[in-house]
Amino acid sequence: MARGVTYFDPFQERRIDGDTAMRAMLEPIAGQIKVDRYDMIDPRVQQYGDAALLTFNLISYRTQPNGVEAAISSWNASEIYARIDGRWTIVHSHWSFIKPELKQAVSEGA
Amino acid sequence: MARGVTYFDPFQERRIDGDTAMRAMLEPIAGQIKVDRYDMIDPRVQQYGDAALLTFNLISYRTQPNGVEAAISSWNASEIYARIDGRWTIVHSHWSFIKPELKQAVSEGA
Repeated sequence: MARGVTYFDPFQERRIDGDTAMRAMLEPIAGQIKVDRYDMIDPRVQQYGDAALLTFNLISYRTQPNGVEAAISSWNASEIYARIDGRWTIVHSHWSFIKPELKQAVSEGA
Repeated sequence: MARGVTYFDPFQERRIDGDTAMRAMLEPIAGQIKVDRYDMIDPRVQQYGDAALLTFNLISYRTQPNGVEAAISSWNASEIYARIDGRWTIVHSHWSFIKPELKQAVSEGA
């Protein structure tokens, strides 16, 4: 990942800035995420010179104690790569829930 | 916006692809979003040649009937621009809620 990488996911209070902060966030959860299968839906790459954007939806599944597989989360994902000193490296990730069911509805309606 | 623009927000079932689909999504909500004030928090630009990424957090406020201002939503935002035929144009947006309070917790824990 690039030194200046930036990152959003639904568990962060604010954007995470920089590889040091990213590593500090990832370390305590390394190996803690358990998903049995996922579907990556309709990945698309948009390339603009030395930058490329990969977007997709992702559904994660986990086999329940009764042996039945259940979808446990569904995601929007944007991953941005840049060619820096000749190497493609990640410079930004944004993960969010698809249509989260909120406890309290957000209304910006007129 | 670019013809090949892509888009995520918390209200979409899947990624929106292309300017025609974007306009179809935006048309019915044009003028319907009412926010009295917002704070754009810590905007950052990362530029890689002909592509640039703008990220920020945003808090929207609305004055309640009793005259008191209240935060009504808080956002993570990623906006990607590319220089296409010499003009900077938007090629991707991803908007998501900061730490949404879900009705049902998502667990991918081991």
